[in-house]
Amino acid sequence: MPRFVHKQKKEIGLSPDDLLFRGQKKMDKVVLRIIDFDPAKVAENDVATVQQVIEYQHTNSVTWFNVDGLHNTKVMQKIVDGFGFEPMMLADVLNTHARPKVQEYDNCILVSLKMLKAEEDGTISVENLSLILTKNVLISFQERTGDVFEPVRERIRNQKKRIRNSGTDYLLFALLDIVIDNYIYIIGLLGERIETLEDDLLNDPNQKVIDKINTYKQELNFLRKNIKPAKEMILSLAKMESDLLHDYMDVHFQELQDNINQANETSDSYREILSDQLNIYHTTISSKLNDIMKFLTVFSVIFIPLTFIAGIYGTNFEYVPELRYKYSYFVMWAVMIVVAVAMLLYFRVKKWL
Amino acid sequence: MPRFVHKQKKEIGLSPDDLLFRGQKKMDKVVLRIIDFDPAKVAENDVATVQQVIEYQHTNSVTWFNVDGLHNTKVMQKIVDGFGFEPMMLADVLNTHARPKVQEYDNCILVSLKMLKAEEDGTISVENLSLILTKNVLISFQERTGDVFEPVRERIRNQKKRIRNSGTDYLLFALLDIVIDNYIYIIGLLGERIETLEDDLLNDPNQKVIDKINTYKQELNFLRKNIKPAKEMILSLAKMESDLLHDYMDVHFQELQDNINQANETSDSYREILSDQLNIYHTTISSKLNDIMKFLTVFSVIFIPLTFIAGIYGTNFEYVPELRYKYSYFVMWAVMIVVAVAMLLYFRVKKWL
Amino acid sequence: MPRFVHKQKKEIGLSPDDLLFRGQKKMDKVVLRIIDFDPAKVAENDVATVQQVIEYQHTNSVTWFNVDGLHNTKVMQKIVDGFGFEPMMLADVLNTHARPKVQEYDNCILVSLKMLKAEEDGTISVENLSLILTKNVLISFQERTGDVFEPVRERIRNQKKRIRNSGTDYLLFALLDIVIDNYIYIIGLLGERIETLEDDLLNDPNQKVIDKINTYKQELNFLRKNIKPAKEMILSLAKMESDLLHDYMDVHFQELQDNINQANETSDSYREILSDQLNIYHTTISSKLNDIMKFLTVFSVIFIPLTFIAGIYGTNFEYVPELRYKYSYFVMWAVMIVVAVAMLLYFRVKKWL
Amino acid sequence: MPRFVHKQKKEIGLSPDDLLFRGQKKMDKVVLRIIDFDPAKVAENDVATVQQVIEYQHTNSVTWFNVDGLHNTKVMQKIVDGFGFEPMMLADVLNTHARPKVQEYDNCILVSLKMLKAEEDGTISVENLSLILTKNVLISFQERTGDVFEPVRERIRNQKKRIRNSGTDYLLFALLDIVIDNYIYIIGLLGERIETLEDDLLNDPNQKVIDKINTYKQELNFLRKNIKPAKEMILSLAKMESDLLHDYMDVHFQELQDNINQANETSDSYREILSDQLNIYHTTISSKLNDIMKFLTVFSVIFIPLTFIAGIYGTNFEYVPELRYKYSYFVMWAVMIVVAVAMLLYFRVKKWL
Amino acid sequence: MPRFVHKQKKEIGLSPDDLLFRGQKKMDKVVLRIIDFDPAKVAENDVATVQQVIEYQHTNSVTWFNVDGLHNTKVMQKIVDGFGFEPMMLADVLNTHARPKVQEYDNCILVSLKMLKAEEDGTISVENLSLILTKNVLISFQERTGDVFEPVRERIRNQKKRIRNSGTDYLLFALLDIVIDNYIYIIGLLGERIETLEDDLLNDPNQKVIDKINTYKQELNFLRKNIKPAKEMILSLAKMESDLLHDYMDVHFQELQDNINQANETSDSYREILSDQLNIYHTTISSKLNDIMKFLTVFSVIFIPLTFIAGIYGTNFEYVPELRYKYSYFVMWAVMIVVAVAMLLYFRVKKWL
Repeated sequence: MPRFVHKQKKEIGLSPDDLLFRGQKKMDKVVLRIIDFDPAKVAENDVATVQQVIEYQHTNSVTWFNVDGLHNTKVMQKIVDGFGFEPMMLADVLNTHARPKVQEYDNCILVSLKMLKAEEDGTISVENLSLILTKNVLISFQERTGDVFEPVRERIRNQKKRIRNSGTDYLLFALLDIVIDNYIYIIGLLGERIETLEDDLLNDPNQKVIDKINTYKQELNFLRKNIKPAKEMILSLAKMESDLLHDYMDVHFQELQDNINQANETSDSYREILSDQLNIYHTTISSKLNDIMKFLTVFSVIFIPLTFIAGIYGTNFEYVPELRYKYSYFVMWAVMIVVAVAMLLYFRVKKWL
Repeated sequence: MPRFVHKQKKEIGLSPDDLLFRGQKKMDKVVLRIIDFDPAKVAENDVATVQQVIEYQHTNSVTWFNVDGLHNTKVMQKIVDGFGFEPMMLADVLNTHARPKVQEYDNCILVSLKMLKAEEDGTISVENLSLILTKNVLISFQERTGDVFEPVRERIRNQKKRIRNSGTDYLLFALLDIVIDNYIYIIGLLGERIETLEDDLLNDPNQKVIDKINTYKQELNFLRKNIKPAKEMILSLAKMESDLLHDYMDVHFQELQDNINQANETSDSYREILSDQLNIYHTTISSKLNDIMKFLTVFSVIFIPLTFIAGIYGTNFEYVPELRYKYSYFVMWAVMIVVAVAMLLYFRVKKWL
Repeated sequence: MPRFVHKQKKEIGLSPDDLLFRGQKKMDKVVLRIIDFDPAKVAENDVATVQQVIEYQHTNSVTWFNVDGLHNTKVMQKIVDGFGFEPMMLADVLNTHARPKVQEYDNCILVSLKMLKAEEDGTISVENLSLILTKNVLISFQERTGDVFEPVRERIRNQKKRIRNSGTDYLLFALLDIVIDNYIYIIGLLGERIETLEDDLLNDPNQKVIDKINTYKQELNFLRKNIKPAKEMILSLAKMESDLLHDYMDVHFQELQDNINQANETSDSYREILSDQLNIYHTTISSKLNDIMKFLTVFSVIFIPLTFIAGIYGTNFEYVPELRYKYSYFVMWAVMIVVAVAMLLYFRVKKWL
Repeated sequence: MPRFVHKQKKEIGLSPDDLLFRGQKKMDKVVLRIIDFDPAKVAENDVATVQQVIEYQHTNSVTWFNVDGLHNTKVMQKIVDGFGFEPMMLADVLNTHARPKVQEYDNCILVSLKMLKAEEDGTISVENLSLILTKNVLISFQERTGDVFEPVRERIRNQKKRIRNSGTDYLLFALLDIVIDNYIYIIGLLGERIETLEDDLLNDPNQKVIDKINTYKQELNFLRKNIKPAKEMILSLAKMESDLLHDYMDVHFQELQDNINQANETSDSYREILSDQLNIYHTTISSKLNDIMKFLTVFSVIFIPLTFIAGIYGTNFEYVPELRYKYSYFVMWAVMIVVAVAMLLYFRVKKWL
Repeated sequence: MPRFVHKQKKEIGLSPDDLLFRGQKKMDKVVLRIIDFDPAKVAENDVATVQQVIEYQHTNSVTWFNVDGLHNTKVMQKIVDGFGFEPMMLADVLNTHARPKVQEYDNCILVSLKMLKAEEDGTISVENLSLILTKNVLISFQERTGDVFEPVRERIRNQKKRIRNSGTDYLLFALLDIVIDNYIYIIGLLGERIETLEDDLLNDPNQKVIDKINTYKQELNFLRKNIKPAKEMILSLAKMESDLLHDYMDVHFQELQDNINQANETSDSYREILSDQLNIYHTTISSKLNDIMKFLTVFSVIFIPLTFIAGIYGTNFEYVPELRYKYSYFVMWAVMIVVAVAMLLYFRVKKWL
């Protein structure tokens, strides 16, 4: 799982217009896909060049232009030129370490946030998703091809759905909604693993449990770090007054806010649970150790006077009257047993055993 | 007691208009009940179909339409159609995991919050309550039939009460008031159990007490998690400027806010008490263990020189002058007793015993 | 000392207009007292019925109408009728568990807060005080007769004081001022007891000290819980724009705010002190225990090699050369003393003793 | 060093107009001093009566009227009468326990705050400073004569300084600036002592160090308690819109805010340092104790099997074959040494020693 | 690494106009450099006197005037006179301990903040950077000559870059951007060292690791203390409405805010990591000690009954039947082995070993 981003020395002092890809290349070739739809028709196709897409901005239909792969700065330059974007904005898209944000430009709105995905091997991958909202075209930039947005495509294909009859802003909402739903889903996956720890914690608290707690804590912090700034971002988006966002979006932005709040609250809850588990672990371990040490100490203490008594009659004094009597040895045993039993009873009464 | 909600994979990417029941089915058949009243008359009856209810929206009387059971999406569809609601709003009603919220629509206000109920077996059940406020009809959606709102029905039947002479907004207040009163009542029940722990804690602090503290802590967190977002919700409602809410409601919303604040403050107090109890438990346990270990150590230490002395005279040297004197053995005992008493006194003076 | 309020099952779902006394009856008979004054004259008298008071609202003098005892709902009903108050407002007055609050009504302002009083037996009693401010009459409701407000009466009797020449709003300020002064006084009383703990803590930290710290902590929390919401209340009052409050009250409300802030800050300080004391206690106790255990362990360790040496010469081997020499026994003693002294020196150098 | 203020019983319920000195009398006779200046001339002199000062309010020069000693309420009454102040305002000046505050009156502004001073014996004294800003006269009230403001007098005497050419508001700024500079200076003094603790902490952590940490913590809390409310006060002053404050004061108030923020941040830093030092102390102490106990335990454990072996051959069985061989004794020693060395190696490998 | 600033006694009460250098002299001679550019041309040169620079304020080109070294107050006085600045502003520039701030004056804006730099020997140096923005000239004050701003000079030399075609405000942004990029870079450097601690922590947690953690914690606190106030400063700058800042700067200030937020969040993350590492260290150490003590105690306890048995048969009673049998000695050994093995098994079953 990746940690925090370290700025490279060479990245310091760059012009904000420099189109430099800052991130890890996650796929070989940039893939461009188009879905173009209006209430009457849908057309999906892969396109070879940016040129094919640019005309869509002048039609009345809604066009979703998806770019998988960010490392090809030439493609990016063509998008800048074709759509008339600020170069600076594309430079932001190319920086995969950027914080989630919303920025309004003259002819478009840039939204960027982190996309979390549960991979098949159980790890969680994080990717930067940038969305550029223009009047007729929504451009999405992903670091690699994924099937996360498939349900939205499905809804677009279905004529009766609201998405077919709305603008690019509703499409933007649909994509953000899926990203946030994935946050909740992934927190849930981690949460399930955290909750199953509870049994181990009570029955057999060992080093493995504590290691797992620490791992889960790190993973949760990682999730939180990626999810938290999205809240601010959604809020800014909801407050933005732009011609590109219709009034009917208010309700939908409200829903996004509710969802992101739920994601944050659930992750807070799991954080508290982990912290409680850690406390319970330490309490249990320490109470177990205390019991052992108490038992061992009591055990030792019982033998101390007995060994002392034996020591007394191991002395070589010429005149020790007790040594002469025939039953002395047995009397000694009797005394020892009485002493031991008395001490045991005392400790039991005192609840030390 | 339920924990946090995990989003299912199939729930990701749904359209907000899809009427899908997300929750646990808690009763077999959906039950529809109507109370229709104006200052002059009251009429209560169970209705078989939604169709019978729809006309009430055009009369001048106040109608409270209660729906118990949410799993029948056909019924819901009929409500959407009959009252002309946004499908999206009903989809919210069907999601029992949603956060408490208030949402204003063109012709109505949706209020949803968690309803806590102390069951007869001592557990606490949580249920989603959705209320739709329209001009003449208040619709309430409960997950199952309960008698929580009986006192309101009672007040409606009584001609002299304010509720008979007010609109749907006052009815909304009356229902919210009961829900919040139940919060305070349930926190009180848990609080009583928490306060009775205090005696056990001082007299006999054992593992059971700590287990109880941990359980109560979890239960309290569960309550807090459900109550807290209601505060925000009430605040939004109080600030809402809508034709559906009369001016005279300000005082009543103020009262709801006072009550929800009291609920939150009381739960905060119990949380602090639990945290204090945990501290006292640990302090007591550790101070008890310290006393035991100190006692045992002092006990052992007293025997150490005595055993050493006995060891000295257990040596087999050919010439040990002391061994020859007749009273040596008794002198040894005397010395031992002196040493032991001296040490005891020393420890007593030092307050180690 | 009372704890947190538990809502009774029967209190759930009551109409806000129901005049139900919710609290503990603290005196037998309701006592009604009147002070009526203007710059020229003062008249004080006990009155038998509410009827006698009602006319005062139409005179130009300032009337302070004090009601001791809240349990008689008939009296309350008469006040409601006589002054034309909202029944709902009086219901609030009757709920002695309500949170401090300010509520503006058409013809009056309701102010309620907690009154703390140091009883003669050292305990602290808490009482709800409700004040209703109207144009010419200020009504105060106390749970029982007390002499807390005597200094205000004294000032009223004195013609030169500002209170004689001002309206009901200044009288309200004077009463609130006394209540808040009492907060500071009572925190001071507790504070003195907390500060005297410090000597015990350093000289003789025992279980009694820790019990006292815990008790004071609870008492302080109790005070804080009652004082804190008053701050909000005073703030709301200061911000209120009402014809009943003259402009010259701004300075006085500012003073109330300063005082309540001082009360809160002082209680925060004592809370930190208690927390520090707890830390010092634990540190002292643990350091004392460490010293004891270290001493005892070092003591035991010194005897271990000595006892071992004695054990060696207690063996019964046929050929042990040392046993035969005449001075062996004394050599053994010498060796033992050297070993013991060497260990003592080593421990002393290492600063373990 | 003084602690928190306890309200006296007799102070409860006083009228805000009562001119009562609430504080400790710190000097015998009230001293009145005047500096009167305009761009052209300066005149300094001690005055005997308030009467002499009152005329200055009608001249065009700036007059700084300094009052040392507050206990003479007759002097105060004359100031009230002479300058036409609200009696209430002077009552605030006389309460040396009041919180720092700014209050605007019709013809003046009252500023009060705590003045800290490092005394020559190393202690820190706290004093209340009240400043009344009128159009032509600035009145300062100190509890006793001091030389804190000498640098300002020096600047006034110097014709080229800005202070000579500005109004009473700039003079107010100059005095406040010195008070806040003193805060930073005094925090620095304490800070130096805190920083020197660090060496002791690492080399020789003993009870004295912990006592010092606790003392410094209390002193720092005392400073913070006095400095913190000044921040609020400065902020209120900067926001105040009054004819008495010229526009050019904005920059100067900004500087005061920066300085008071620096004071607060530095004290926060030292608080964190103290808290870290406490942690380091506890860690060091506990790690040292652990090392001792580990060493002692390992030492004891090595002797346990040796003593056991000796015990075996101390038994008096008639037939113990080993006792008969001539070299048995030496073999026993050899075995013992092997066992001891083996154990030592084992512990060393395990890194327990 | 420097700690907190202590105010000197002599600095108290200075006039804000006094041009006094408050800091450490870091270079011998003040160095003045000029870059003057417009879209068409660039001119760079070192200048000998301030006089040469002053004319640039009346040309239409953008001039960046860099001053390295602040200790020469004569140079400063000339700048004040030549540009017509407030003396007070330059006094702020000369105080290298001032908090980061933005201050608007009549004809210019002063921005000051801390510049962090990773020195070649691994230490981090901190320097105060002051920037004065006027219409045509940007003046930068550094404490010593450095190459931090070289990338900006590079961009200026390149005609195609945006910086060549923008005003002084964009130049200001470019400089601030580099300073903040350096914050992130330096936090990253420290972060890398912190992350490498993790292995040591798990494999070999010793005193060195804890010392490093404490050192890194101090360094991180030092960074945070310098970076944090810059956030506020950037925010004030972004909110400032001044003719000197063009509208197109909004996007750039937004970027600065994002970057400073990222710096703060990353440092928060490392702080949490350090705190977690400290916890893991203590847990590991304590668990290791517990294991040792448990092992040693169990080991001792096993020998206690064995030694007791040997003691029994070391007694010198005349009649001890067991001593007489031929195989008694071997039976004793057998019993001892059985006891030892039984105890071992018991401890193993109980999971104490």
